[in-house]
Amino acid sequence: MKFVLEGVMEFSKPLEPVKLDFPKLVAKEINSELFKKGVPQEQEGSRIVHWAIEGSKLLVTIEGTTYLRPHDAFLRLRNFLSEKFGKDYGIGVRNIFVRDYEIRYTPKKLPKEAIQVKVPWVKSIELKGNEIIIKLQNLDSTALEDRYVERILRRVEEKIDAQAYGGKAEHWELIWKSKEKKPVWDKDPSEEMEKRGWIKRFDVGVWLYTPIPAKILRTMQQIALKEVIKPLKFEEVILPKVTPLEVWLRTGHVPGSSNSFFYVSKPLTYDPEYWEGFADYVKVTNKIPYEELKEKLEAPRAGVCFAQCPPFYWYFEKKSLQEENLPIKVWDASGTSMRWEAGGLHGIERVCEFHRIEIIWLGTKDQAIDIREKLVERYKQIFEKILDIEWRMAWVTPWYMAQAGQVGEAEKEKGTIDFEAWLPFRGSRE
Amino acid sequence: MKFVLEGVMEFSKPLEPVKLDFPKLVAKEINSELFKKGVPQEQEGSRIVHWAIEGSKLLVTIEGTTYLRPHDAFLRLRNFLSEKFGKDYGIGVRNIFVRDYEIRYTPKKLPKEAIQVKVPWVKSIELKGNEIIIKLQNLDSTALEDRYVERILRRVEEKIDAQAYGGKAEHWELIWKSKEKKPVWDKDPSEEMEKRGWIKRFDVGVWLYTPIPAKILRTMQQIALKEVIKPLKFEEVILPKVTPLEVWLRTGHVPGSSNSFFYVSKPLTYDPEYWEGFADYVKVTNKIPYEELKEKLEAPRAGVCFAQCPPFYWYFEKKSLQEENLPIKVWDASGTSMRWEAGGLHGIERVCEFHRIEIIWLGTKDQAIDIREKLVERYKQIFEKILDIEWRMAWVTPWYMAQAGQVGEAEKEKGTIDFEAWLPFRGSRE
Repeated sequence: MKFVLEGVMEFSKPLEPVKLDFPKLVAKEINSELFKKGVPQEQEGSRIVHWAIEGSKLLVTIEGTTYLRPHDAFLRLRNFLSEKFGKDYGIGVRNIFVRDYEIRYTPKKLPKEAIQVKVPWVKSIELKGNEIIIKLQNLDSTALEDRYVERILRRVEEKIDAQAYGGKAEHWELIWKSKEKKPVWDKDPSEEMEKRGWIKRFDVGVWLYTPIPAKILRTMQQIALKEVIKPLKFEEVILPKVTPLEVWLRTGHVPGSSNSFFYVSKPLTYDPEYWEGFADYVKVTNKIPYEELKEKLEAPRAGVCFAQCPPFYWYFEKKSLQEENLPIKVWDASGTSMRWEAGGLHGIERVCEFHRIEIIWLGTKDQAIDIREKLVERYKQIFEKILDIEWRMAWVTPWYMAQAGQVGEAEKEKGTIDFEAWLPFRGSRE
Repeated sequence: MKFVLEGVMEFSKPLEPVKLDFPKLVAKEINSELFKKGVPQEQEGSRIVHWAIEGSKLLVTIEGTTYLRPHDAFLRLRNFLSEKFGKDYGIGVRNIFVRDYEIRYTPKKLPKEAIQVKVPWVKSIELKGNEIIIKLQNLDSTALEDRYVERILRRVEEKIDAQAYGGKAEHWELIWKSKEKKPVWDKDPSEEMEKRGWIKRFDVGVWLYTPIPAKILRTMQQIALKEVIKPLKFEEVILPKVTPLEVWLRTGHVPGSSNSFFYVSKPLTYDPEYWEGFADYVKVTNKIPYEELKEKLEAPRAGVCFAQCPPFYWYFEKKSLQEENLPIKVWDASGTSMRWEAGGLHGIERVCEFHRIEIIWLGTKDQAIDIREKLVERYKQIFEKILDIEWRMAWVTPWYMAQAGQVGEAEKEKGTIDFEAWLPFRGSRE
């Protein structure tokens, strides 16, 4: 990797007093000492190849390698000059800024199509021969200190990987399948139940269940409790059903699943006075002014539960766990989760609002894998002996990982197993 | 009530041909026949007191009473002229518009302070002596046909009522209270449980329950099932947990509780391309650009479940029920409901996210009251014999009714009973 950075350092006073000594400083102290620290002796780190002083501004061009990346060198330079000029001349650093930053390297895999990272700091990403040339711009101290550069590079790699694995499609791999079975009934259950008034479509992918189907769902839950949860000694917890986006930021659901959330916003204020005009409008017209309503709300800070696990992980934030307290095995069925999907919604088997049990476990790697295997055994029992359905299981790299660019081979061990059953009304088994 | 309306009716052609005959038409057909229909003989209806023709426009001033309100007379006039001018001269009505509309009357109760209805059609509402003078403006055919005028008048009455009943405060009236009991423990349970790591605050008014408190909550649910739901033969249903605002518009929760909802918005599109720039920004900065996110969402069309009943009522939309199928008695505990509250949140007893059972019943008035009484009996049993707590019950006019202006005496029969228990850690019993 080759890096060329053009940066500006702004000081509290004109740099006239340092001008004379600066060439020596660059040669003797900066390039040969400051920028050598931590760099293996036979390797190149970073060095200032050009500089100029204009009033209270220092303009530098730094070239470097991965052993010391120029933006790290630039931050190091700020601290060094801050101390040196402060002591010797009473001059402080006001501001640092990278106007242009060019990074070129030969990637392990070549991208199949143009890569874009749509943030203000990326000017262009080009492929020339076997080399990727990334041009960055306008990086301020936050961008430099909060590692935007590293994250842009990682994002480029993720996008190359995602392209290699077929972009957004999910990766599917059969593990096991049951024998083919003759269906006892081949109608569409949702259609049939709707006709009888057992279920009713409340909204896109959202259903209301009257007593008979409610009983069926509860019976399924009883089976799960009796056959899986109790014998494997999972304990019930009650997890929140609206998740702050900041929690999802840490679990990777933001941004991975950002297009699928049902976002939750609170009113800007509870004050009834503030809502009086809205209430008047609705009462007089019997219509909801949706766009006006949008302006009366805060920006969304949360979303309806997508998976139950993020609040569970969050519970352990800043806690240290002793190995003797592991594994932790819990389940939650205290509410619904929701996912927005573009298409393919159908009946009660492909929905936006899910009624489900989530089981979560936490342990050493061996414990985690052992529990997974026990669960799979129990599921097999249920599908084969109790439900007697035609089913299969497969490794599936979830699309949120795919979309977030995490689709490498190493993900499989911690990947997802899907249990899929054949719905006879659909005809084809595929 | 006295009404004076100034309206404009625009025709498809200049009204030159009708000018000569119009005075006769007003005197003989409109004021004496058209505007008399349905008006009791000894009463005044509406009449045109002034008119002018300007090109293709007819300007009229109509005075009237509640026996025939001028805006109804105006709509009647449109239909009449539409037919008459159409047949005789091939002239059609293009457009109707009320520029000014003054309504004055002596209200049953005088408002305590100025009344405002903040919609574009209300110019001013004034009190002069014992009279309220409402000046309306710019009413188009939608406003006239969709009864905005009637709703504005009702809204004024609601606001006068709400002022009389003390505005937004809730109306509380004791029905019964238990004996005072000596507390067995007087600590704050939430504080105690938090200290032990049994519960954790996930967000404002949102808690996570670990196995022990989860077990306590489930035990409470078991008591409700065993003592109330099963003996009274309620059946379980599974109701959606996100409610479209259009459903709440019909139940009155919109606008009554608009300041307390957790609103739900979907992404403008599911298309991952559309979310790519957002994903890039989050991945590079590790920050969520909330305002940008807001613009990537639709206006809110729904809210997190506030009460379970609205989807249940919606289920019966356009269904006719036979009396022999009543009463219908159901319960739901398939998810959480959420309410935003300004202040007063505390521990697990005053929350934004509720875990609860909702029981709903539907029947004739006698059945409904009978079921309520049986429920109250059962609740008494639970509080007195099983929980052995100090409690009371009271009529409470819910604040959403209060806010929507529905606080009259007649509401009590269908009003709310609150069951309140003394929390010893709070000290005072009030």
